[in-house]
Amino acid sequence: MTIAFIGMGTMGTPMAMNILNAGYDLVVHNRHRDREIPLVEKGATRAPSPAAAAETAEIVIICVSDTPDVEEIVLGENGIIRGAGKNTLVVDMSTISPAATRRMATTLGEKGIRMIDAPVSGGSEGAINGTLAIMAGGTPADVETARPVLASMGKTITHVGPVGSGQVTKAINQVIIAATYLGVAEGMTLGLKAGLDMEKVVSAIAGGAAGSWVLENRSAFMIKNDYPLGFRVRLHAKDLRIALEAAREMGAALPVSALVDQIESGLIGRGYGDEDVSAMARTIREMSGIDS
Amino acid sequence: MTIAFIGMGTMGTPMAMNILNAGYDLVVHNRHRDREIPLVEKGATRAPSPAAAAETAEIVIICVSDTPDVEEIVLGENGIIRGAGKNTLVVDMSTISPAATRRMATTLGEKGIRMIDAPVSGGSEGAINGTLAIMAGGTPADVETARPVLASMGKTITHVGPVGSGQVTKAINQVIIAATYLGVAEGMTLGLKAGLDMEKVVSAIAGGAAGSWVLENRSAFMIKNDYPLGFRVRLHAKDLRIALEAAREMGAALPVSALVDQIESGLIGRGYGDEDVSAMARTIREMSGIDS
Repeated sequence: MTIAFIGMGTMGTPMAMNILNAGYDLVVHNRHRDREIPLVEKGATRAPSPAAAAETAEIVIICVSDTPDVEEIVLGENGIIRGAGKNTLVVDMSTISPAATRRMATTLGEKGIRMIDAPVSGGSEGAINGTLAIMAGGTPADVETARPVLASMGKTITHVGPVGSGQVTKAINQVIIAATYLGVAEGMTLGLKAGLDMEKVVSAIAGGAAGSWVLENRSAFMIKNDYPLGFRVRLHAKDLRIALEAAREMGAALPVSALVDQIESGLIGRGYGDEDVSAMARTIREMSGIDS
Repeated sequence: MTIAFIGMGTMGTPMAMNILNAGYDLVVHNRHRDREIPLVEKGATRAPSPAAAAETAEIVIICVSDTPDVEEIVLGENGIIRGAGKNTLVVDMSTISPAATRRMATTLGEKGIRMIDAPVSGGSEGAINGTLAIMAGGTPADVETARPVLASMGKTITHVGPVGSGQVTKAINQVIIAATYLGVAEGMTLGLKAGLDMEKVVSAIAGGAAGSWVLENRSAFMIKNDYPLGFRVRLHAKDLRIALEAAREMGAALPVSALVDQIESGLIGRGYGDEDVSAMARTIREMSGIDS
C-alpha cells in the first residue's frame, strides 16, 4: 500500500520515518522541498505538490501547523482534492479547528474522498519512538482502514466519534493541561515564597489528589525557573486558541482556559514563546515578586 | 507512651483508632463529649478538657476543623498550654493557617512546650486505612519524636521544613487541586457540548500530559453531573481561603485559586457545599448551558 505524507516538520518527519520503517511505500511532500530529502534518503519518493502526492496514494496523511495550512493542502490550487481518486482516505494528524475539519470532510465527501481527523499527543519524543496517543474522528470503517498505518506511529489509537471528534478531544486535552500547568505554577510559587524545599514538597503531595503528569514532570522546571523543551508555549497557545474558538462556536464557557490564553499571549510578547509551556510559572513568579 | 488525641471528627476518630491499634495508651477529648465513647469502648480513657488531656500525655495530637478551633484548644482557658508539662510535644494535624501555627508554636515554646504541624491528605478513606500522606513541619528532633505515632496513621511522612511548613505544603496541595478540578471540568464541558462519548475521550487522554488523579478519579462524576463524597466543597473552600490568606501575607498572587474560591462560594451559597469538590463542574456546565 502507498501512503502519502505531507508536512515534514518536527512531528511529521519522525512520523513519516516510522511509516517507512513499517514497510509501506511512502511518497512525501513539503512546502520547503529540502525537508523531503532525509525521507528520500531512507527510500521515500518525492511529489511536487499535495495533488501529485494524492494521485499516487490510497491514504494521504497531513501533519502541519494550523487550520489555514491544512485548508490550503486539502482544498487549494494544488491541493489533495485535485489529485485524489474516489475512495482515497485523507488522514489529518494536525491540530486544527474541529469546525473547519467537518467543512473539509463535507467538501471532500462530495467528490467521494474520505477524511478522518487523527491529532496526536506525546510530543516529538512520542513521534520519534512511535508512542504517540492518537485521537481519531471519522466513520468506523475509515478509522479501521487507517488503523494499521496509525499503529506504526502511535501506541494508543482511540476512535472517539465522527469526523471532527479527534480535534475536539485534542482541544479538551489542551484545555486540561492549561489549567494543570497554571495550578502547579501557583503551588510552586506559594511554596517558594514561603522558603520551602520544593523538591520535598513535590514528593509529599505527588502521590495524592494533587498528582498529575505536569506536577511529576514539569514542576522542577518551575522551581529552577528554567524551561527547556518540552512543548512550546506558542504551539500550546495556538491549540488553546482553537479550543476557545470551538467553545465560542458551541456556546461553552472556559474561564481558566481564557486566563491561560492571556498569560501565554504575554509570554509570547515578551519573547518566551519558544520555551516549554511550564514557562507559565514565569508569570506567576513575577506577579509574586520572586524574580524582581 | 501515652498519647492524647483531641478532636473526634470524621478524620480524628479513625486516626485515633489507629493509634490505639498500634498499642499506645490513648487519652481522648472532644468538645461534644459523646463523640469520645467509641474510642473509650476500644480502650481509650477520657479527659474533660484539652488541659486535662495534656497533663497525662507526652504527645498531644489535635485534629479539628479550622484555625480558631486550634487556637482555643491550644491557648484557651482550658487549653493545652494550661496542662502540658515541659517537653510535651503538640502535633497539630488540622489544616489551618501557617502564620497562626507559627504564632502558637512561639507562645508554647516560651513555656518549654514543643509543637509541630502535620496536616494530612488522603481523606476519610486514608484515615480509616492508616494510609494518609502526612506533611510535617518542625525541628528535625520533634518530627522524629512524633514519627512512630504518625506512622500508625499514615503511609508517607514527609518532613518539609520548620514549623508551619506542613501547613504551607497542605495549602500548595489545595491550590493545585483547585486548578486541576476546574481544568477537568472545562474539558468535560467542552466535550459534552460537542456530543462526544466522554468515557472514550478520558481514556484517550488520561495516559498523557493531561493525566491527573482528578481526571482518573473524578471526571466520571462531572460527566454524570452527580457528585458523591469524596471531599466536601465547603472543606476545600476553607482550605483554599487559608491558602489565599497565606498568599496575601507573603505577597504571592494566585489567580486560578482566587477564581476557584469564587466558584466554590457560589456553590456553597446555592446549597452544594456538602457535595464533592468535583461539583465545580456544575458551574462550568451551567455557564455553558448544558443543564438549563
